[in-house]
Amino acid sequence: METEKDLSILKKIAQEEEISLALLRERIKKGTVVIPLNKKRKINRPCAIGEGLRVKVNVNLGSSWGYSRVDIELKKLEISIKYGADTVMDLSIGRNLEKVRKTILDNSPIPVGTVPIYEAAVEAMIKKGDITYMTPQSIINIIEKQAKEGVDFFTIHCGLNKKTLETFLKQKRILDIVSRGGAILLNWMSSTKKENPLYEYFDEIIEIAKDYGIVLSLGDSLRPGSILDATDRAQIDELIILGELTQKAREKGVQVIIEGPGHVSLDQIEANIIAEKKLCHGAPFYVLGPLVTDIALGYDHIAGAIGAAYAAYCGADFLCYVTPSEHLSLPTVEDVKEGLIAFKIAAHAGDLARGNKKAYLKDKKISLARKYRAWEKQFEISFDPEKAKFYHRRTGLKDVCSMCSKFCSIKMVDKCLNFLLK
Amino acid sequence: METEKDLSILKKIAQEEEISLALLRERIKKGTVVIPLNKKRKINRPCAIGEGLRVKVNVNLGSSWGYSRVDIELKKLEISIKYGADTVMDLSIGRNLEKVRKTILDNSPIPVGTVPIYEAAVEAMIKKGDITYMTPQSIINIIEKQAKEGVDFFTIHCGLNKKTLETFLKQKRILDIVSRGGAILLNWMSSTKKENPLYEYFDEIIEIAKDYGIVLSLGDSLRPGSILDATDRAQIDELIILGELTQKAREKGVQVIIEGPGHVSLDQIEANIIAEKKLCHGAPFYVLGPLVTDIALGYDHIAGAIGAAYAAYCGADFLCYVTPSEHLSLPTVEDVKEGLIAFKIAAHAGDLARGNKKAYLKDKKISLARKYRAWEKQFEISFDPEKAKFYHRRTGLKDVCSMCSKFCSIKMVDKCLNFLLK
Repeated sequence: METEKDLSILKKIAQEEEISLALLRERIKKGTVVIPLNKKRKINRPCAIGEGLRVKVNVNLGSSWGYSRVDIELKKLEISIKYGADTVMDLSIGRNLEKVRKTILDNSPIPVGTVPIYEAAVEAMIKKGDITYMTPQSIINIIEKQAKEGVDFFTIHCGLNKKTLETFLKQKRILDIVSRGGAILLNWMSSTKKENPLYEYFDEIIEIAKDYGIVLSLGDSLRPGSILDATDRAQIDELIILGELTQKAREKGVQVIIEGPGHVSLDQIEANIIAEKKLCHGAPFYVLGPLVTDIALGYDHIAGAIGAAYAAYCGADFLCYVTPSEHLSLPTVEDVKEGLIAFKIAAHAGDLARGNKKAYLKDKKISLARKYRAWEKQFEISFDPEKAKFYHRRTGLKDVCSMCSKFCSIKMVDKCLNFLLK
Repeated sequence: METEKDLSILKKIAQEEEISLALLRERIKKGTVVIPLNKKRKINRPCAIGEGLRVKVNVNLGSSWGYSRVDIELKKLEISIKYGADTVMDLSIGRNLEKVRKTILDNSPIPVGTVPIYEAAVEAMIKKGDITYMTPQSIINIIEKQAKEGVDFFTIHCGLNKKTLETFLKQKRILDIVSRGGAILLNWMSSTKKENPLYEYFDEIIEIAKDYGIVLSLGDSLRPGSILDATDRAQIDELIILGELTQKAREKGVQVIIEGPGHVSLDQIEANIIAEKKLCHGAPFYVLGPLVTDIALGYDHIAGAIGAAYAAYCGADFLCYVTPSEHLSLPTVEDVKEGLIAFKIAAHAGDLARGNKKAYLKDKKISLARKYRAWEKQFEISFDPEKAKFYHRRTGLKDVCSMCSKFCSIKMVDKCLNFLLK
């Protein structure tokens, strides 16, 4: 049932996205658009994700075991907001993850996602020294606790089950499983010989999500971690399960998005998007990159932005950023900024290619500002005005720039066109 | 006629590219592959560009008016070599451009390209105070002089003629002409009311190129400088002229490549590649980016890498890099490095998507190194080992990394797979 709060959010989003309220409602009903927003939360910048909307960008924050400073994670949140993140995920897996999450929730004006299995694993590790001491009940309890705290969307690694595990084992991959949630569950499953609780008790998770209006982001434990493993039987078999669970969740009125790879070369990205849209009934696709090569260490934000832009053009709806420190270390605040801006560019490139009018207008405005050498206006429209200004100002020129200086093509052309067109 | 020097270069290239000598020769004969190498030059790292070969990356160097330090340009050359540029172009347009060019030619182990019209413009500016004092003869003289000096490939802006100028004027673009060579020629044409000398005297240029074995890179004066101008009548009309001139040059045994945009949104890149290949008879396509948005000021290397990777996948053969300082200032040495690495990633992503076996092997090797957490091996394969090492080492961990630390998915999975597969 639509509350008054719901209506005001829908109106705000419809206006921002320049679509009608009726169309937005229709797509939400179909499940091709979702709004990640816990019923208990009030935030200033909610967003909708999916069909026909602006492509959204998520920033991953969070501490890890041994690297747990709340103040730094808060700074990462602040810089994410400043540079236009649409959502953040707190992926903390350090001892103080509860404190980090609460701080993020208290301070974030945008939707916040988490991966509850991390807290279950950390809890088992702290209390009993090993993650395999998690129980289905302890996992469900944590999901419920985080729901109460106001988390807006959960990654649930429900696609790794006995069937897909078998497919995976037969596959003999180069890089096996790189999903942290997937690795935790594989560990638990191989130690307990039991079914993945996130799959087995998916109905209970649906109930919690329904109670709090939480979006379930179905995680891909079997996403490829190497270009050579992309689009293999294991990955697609898991996607089939995620499609089944999408239907199950939707029948109960719970919103679903699907998580995608990972590492995929450019020639396979379109096929990945088409497969997800077909197998998962048009559910919004949330891709991690994808990285178009495995060898871009230190520059994975660029390898990821390439894949993300093309994926967005092909129909991906939601891009999870990657930073320059991917595969190497927990990102610093500066890395978060670098990764986010690379992905804002990718999302915008996707928007342009998909014919988004607002995106198009930005490019028109900056092109005109460039024509008239209105530098301040250009900086204002760009993703990082300070950097742009610094680069231009460092040479002291005002009207033109030091690339061409006296031979500025725009200025030369301006002069003779005035003459030619007179 | 194939000399002994030619044969040894062909053999070296065929081996590096893992294709047969016969196939390489056949493609050179057809014109779908070119080798930019002046008969007077001996270099250690020649390369071939075109059909079925590894995608190549060019770095633009060079001073501008008021920003002319030979030592800095030499440093840019050195860093380009270090990070794997395949060719460099000296785009100097400062007072000392001759000195810069000679220094680059003396020190470059890779092919060097130039844009002779720049020197003609600078000469006219210095001697007579205005670029419109260039004459057809002064331009031809400079082309001949640079050929004698050993330049390996020339950008010749021969596609802007009276016909395409008319098409352009009727088009009413947002950002008119952004090509510096195009702007210089437009200036000259509108002032003298004469035909573009690079078009009118193209036969003479062909003769010079033939004498020295120089590759002609047919420049696109009318390339779009805004997403909104991409793939318009002006751009395509110029491409038609470039196709005609390609045929003309080939008939005289001169090798040709075609320069391409510029600013193009993702949805139009494939069409641009197909059009070039059809209209210009399969001539190698040399794209500048393309930038997939106009608003990425300060991050144009990323907007360019996105377009370049996708263009390479669609069939572009040769990528001209873009640096973070594009549209803002002459790049610093550090900017050159940033731009080059972004484009090396793009080229490699293109290679993977095109099924290049050597590229594939690199990703396989780094994936295996990642699996076994062989960090040094990973750094070695990556584009910038120092940066990768710095990012990993900054947290002091050795076996894993601080992203997941205790919860390293690869390590967790390794452990249970050993158990599961036993």
